[in-house]
This record gives sequence, C-alpha cells and structure tokens, in this order.
Amino acid sequence: MNLINYFSKRKKIVDDALDKLLTSDKKDKAQSCNSDSALNSRTLYEAVRYSVFAGGKRIRPILMMAACEAVAGELGDVLVPACAIEMIHTYSLIHDDLPAMDDDALRRGKPTCHKAYGEATAILAGDALLTEAFAVVSSEEFVKKVKPEIAISVVRGIATAAGYKGMVLGQMIDMEMQGGDIDFARLEYLHIHKTGALLLACVKVGATIGGATKGQLCQLIKYGECIGLAFQIADDILDVVGDSKVIGKEAGMDSKHGKITYPKVVGLHEAKNIAEGLISSALESIKDFGKEADPLRRIARFIIEREK
Amino acid sequence: MNLINYFSKRKKIVDDALDKLLTSDKKDKAQSCNSDSALNSRTLYEAVRYSVFAGGKRIRPILMMAACEAVAGELGDVLVPACAIEMIHTYSLIHDDLPAMDDDALRRGKPTCHKAYGEATAILAGDALLTEAFAVVSSEEFVKKVKPEIAISVVRGIATAAGYKGMVLGQMIDMEMQGGDIDFARLEYLHIHKTGALLLACVKVGATIGGATKGQLCQLIKYGECIGLAFQIADDILDVVGDSKVIGKEAGMDSKHGKITYPKVVGLHEAKNIAEGLISSALESIKDFGKEADPLRRIARFIIEREK
Repeated sequence: MNLINYFSKRKKIVDDALDKLLTSDKKDKAQSCNSDSALNSRTLYEAVRYSVFAGGKRIRPILMMAACEAVAGELGDVLVPACAIEMIHTYSLIHDDLPAMDDDALRRGKPTCHKAYGEATAILAGDALLTEAFAVVSSEEFVKKVKPEIAISVVRGIATAAGYKGMVLGQMIDMEMQGGDIDFARLEYLHIHKTGALLLACVKVGATIGGATKGQLCQLIKYGECIGLAFQIADDILDVVGDSKVIGKEAGMDSKHGKITYPKVVGLHEAKNIAEGLISSALESIKDFGKEADPLRRIARFIIEREK
Repeated sequence: MNLINYFSKRKKIVDDALDKLLTSDKKDKAQSCNSDSALNSRTLYEAVRYSVFAGGKRIRPILMMAACEAVAGELGDVLVPACAIEMIHTYSLIHDDLPAMDDDALRRGKPTCHKAYGEATAILAGDALLTEAFAVVSSEEFVKKVKPEIAISVVRGIATAAGYKGMVLGQMIDMEMQGGDIDFARLEYLHIHKTGALLLACVKVGATIGGATKGQLCQLIKYGECIGLAFQIADDILDVVGDSKVIGKEAGMDSKHGKITYPKVVGLHEAKNIAEGLISSALESIKDFGKEADPLRRIARFIIEREK
C-alpha cells in the first residue's frame, strides 16, 4: 500500500464531493432574484469555498472513510458525513484564525479567510460552514441512503464532538490557558477536546455507518482516542521543529502566543515518546482487525510522521 | 385569551426547558478533571447562559409551540426544537453584535456578550450555541420521543433556514448593503433571509411535529412567510420610532450604520401599511383553522404591535 497514492486518491474523492455539496444552487432564490442580490450572496459563497479548497490534507474525512472500510462498510455511504466533518474542521480554523482569537495571517500557505475577505465575512463563512455540515447530513438524499436512525446518530455524534463539551470547549480552554501555568492534566484535557474529539468522531461515525459490531466499535474508539491525542501532540511538535514553508503557516506561533504545549511541558524528546506510545496503543487496539484495517494503521503512523 | 398572560406562561416553559438543556453536565469530563480545568470551562458556559438568559421574548419558540397546537399536536414534543431555535437565534445575535459586524454595545438592555466576556469568548459562545442546537434535536431522548424520521427532518429544517442559503446569507447581504443603493427587491430579499427564514422554520417544524396534513402545512407556510417578513419590517420601524429604554438597544442604529430598511426605502407610513398588509395575509392563510389557531392569530398581531 502506497500511502501517498492512497491519500491523493482519497483526497480527490473528498474534494469532488465537497465541490458538489458546496455549490450555489442555481434553482434557489439567490439566483432567481435580481442580479445584484445574487452578486451580493456570492461573496459569502466564495469565502466558504476559498477556505474549504485552500489545500487541506483531508485527514478527517479520509480517517472516517478508513474506519468505515475497516468494518467492511460501503464507502459511498460515508462520503457526505466525511464532507460534513471537513466543513466543521474548516469553520473551526476560520474562527480560530480571527484577530480576536489566534490572529493568524497564514493558513496552508495562503492568507487566512479574514485576511482575504475581511473579518465580518470570515465570521459568517465559519457560521455558514458549521450550519451546512448539519444540512448535508440531514439532506433527504443522505437520509434515504443510510436510513433516518443512522443519519440522526451522525448528527448527534458530530454535534457532541464539535460543541461546547467537545471542540469548542477545547478552543476556549486553549485561549484561557495562554500564558498560564504548566499542568500536565490540563494539557491532556485541552488536547483531547480541542483536536481529539473531532478525530474520534470521525472514527465513530465511519464505523457506525459501516455497520460495526459493538466489539469492533469499542476497539475503534480506543484507536480514535489514541490517534486524536497523538495528532495534537504532533502538531505541537511541528510548531517547534517544522519548516514554515512546509507546514503552510508560521512556525513558532504556539510559543509566541504563550500556548501550553507538550514540548513546553515535557520537552521535545518526551513529547515524541508520548506520541509514539499513543500510536502503538492505537495499533494494539485494532490488532484483531485484518487487512481491511491497514488504511487505519497507515494513517496512525502518518499522524506522527507527517511534516505538515 | 390574555396575550400577556399567555406569553409569560409560555416564556416560563421555554426558559425552564433551556435551563435544563444548558447545564454543565456534572458527570462529564469537565467536572471530573482537576478543578482548574473545570474553572476554565466555566467561562464559556457562563457566556452562553448570559446571552441565552438576557431577557429574550422567546417569540420563536412560542411561535413553534403555537404552530404545533394549531394542528392539535403535543406541546411536549416541540419543546426541544423550540429551545434549539432560541439557541440559534441567540448565537446569531452574539455574532451580529461583534465589533467586526454591527459593533453593538447593548442588547436587551444589557452589555452584549463580547462587552461582558470579550470577543474571543463571544465568538466561541456563538459557535457553541449553534452546535448545541443540533445536539439537542439529535439527542437520544428527543429522537425516542418523536421518531428518527421526524428528528432528522427537524435538523434539516433548522439547518436549511439558518445556513448560508438562509439566515447567514441574509446577514451577509445586510453587511454588504450598508450604505448601498436603495432597491425594493433587494430589501425584501434581505429581510426574507435575515429574519424570515428562521421564523418560517419555527412554523414548519412546529406544524410537522404536530402532525400537520399537507394542506394544513401549506396554509401555515404562507402564514409563516408573511409574519416572517412583517417581523423584520416591524423591527425596522421600531429602530426609527422606538424608545431605546423599551427596545433594550440603542434606537437609530440602522440609520447610523447606513442600513437599508423599509422606512428608509418606502417611508415610515408605507412601511407600516406593508406590515399591516402582511399580517392580514397571514391571518387570511389560516382562516380555515378553528380556535386552536388563536395563539397564531394573536402572535401575528403582536408582531407589528409590539414596542420592543
């Protein structure tokens, strides 16, 4: 299995699906109204697409697809929620980059949304993407494909992971902890919420749609928890050792913002050890799975070996 | 039927339900972690509750309940989505008040969320409320009560109305049209999206959960479209003739922001006429309904007679 090839093929599938989902419907009122109104509405639409197609790795949707495959599920069933997760990830980056938040000028090597379109549009583009994520997983087409009880469980899984007891809580703690005291328990708690919750949701949703048994789901949840935490530790490490040109944003920003990171709390060497340990645990959790879980295994290794 | 009494009783029901839904679950990790982390997470939770309980009229949830009653539905079934709509309304106000948006210091007579908690927290509190709205209408408890196919249609109805082809689009056009040329078609288009979409969703969701027939739904949709537009026209009028102390925010802000409003485009007198006409049409649409639709009728009149 060639990982670069695998990622690039999967990324293409996700990009095509996102492209179809994020169209300005020609039949809707925005177009039937007079041309000026249609023109007005285009800015929001362009800002949304600018951020979604800014060159993301699509790790989350690819992970969701891999979890679905690991339980021999249908890939086509998972594509819409995979896109929804990417919309939510993108919204979180847009809002995170705002001047009142991390105040970042670059994201994936391009100006951040508010730098390109202004703050008001960036706030609304984030709001639009978050809402649209729930619109696509409740669309009649998707519900017909997976059945209402599965679709509503997808909504629940995504909303819980992204909300104020999940990702948004993580972002809040992240803001509040800047320049604060170092504390390992708080650090882990922060990372699990800020990044881990959404990655875990990818695994859970993918496995559920794929028809995982209770036992399989349990093992995959353990896998998801481990790689979720490892992912943010790897991000912390990249901010220290990464090349700005490769990671597509300014390196060293965590330190500049006084953020509490694994390298800061336990040192770079130990941070790497912890991340390695988590990946080993992730792999151990899915040892009963056969070849169909190989993509999950490769994704786990990729998470700590990536350069951006 | 005493409207003040009716509103105050209904408001109490909604407030109690929101209070229960927006608790920080004592069993969740935020509390089991060390005390400092729990303390950190409280700011977000407090900002969310500050804005939700800042004294809103609860028009949207009360409207949803009234639509459910009009088709002889169970009030208890509609309470959770009614709260979800109020969460979405509140998030939209929090983000709308931000410095990069309308830059408002007062809302319902109290400091706006960002004035009380800072911009970063206000952005996240808005994000949290929007996400939580979808969490509550997909919760196991609610799904069990109304069945998965109804719950997922509620998600779809709310997401479509609130998203980038609905309310968020309206807010975007509102921002872009400030100081722009006057154009009646654009103005109506703006109002229908900015305010009308969510009010219409209240009527649709309430009627659907209540078990409306296709014919009933059709009549109620017409009602919802009319009162939705009338509501925003009434808001425009209040910004001109209202008393800041009564409306709870600074009057005259639309004019100050160069916003395109009905009084500006057609004059105050004609704006009132249009709003009156819409309310008559709304009442006409539901003329076949009996006494059970009286709350809808009273709400329609209240929308243009209110002083805040």
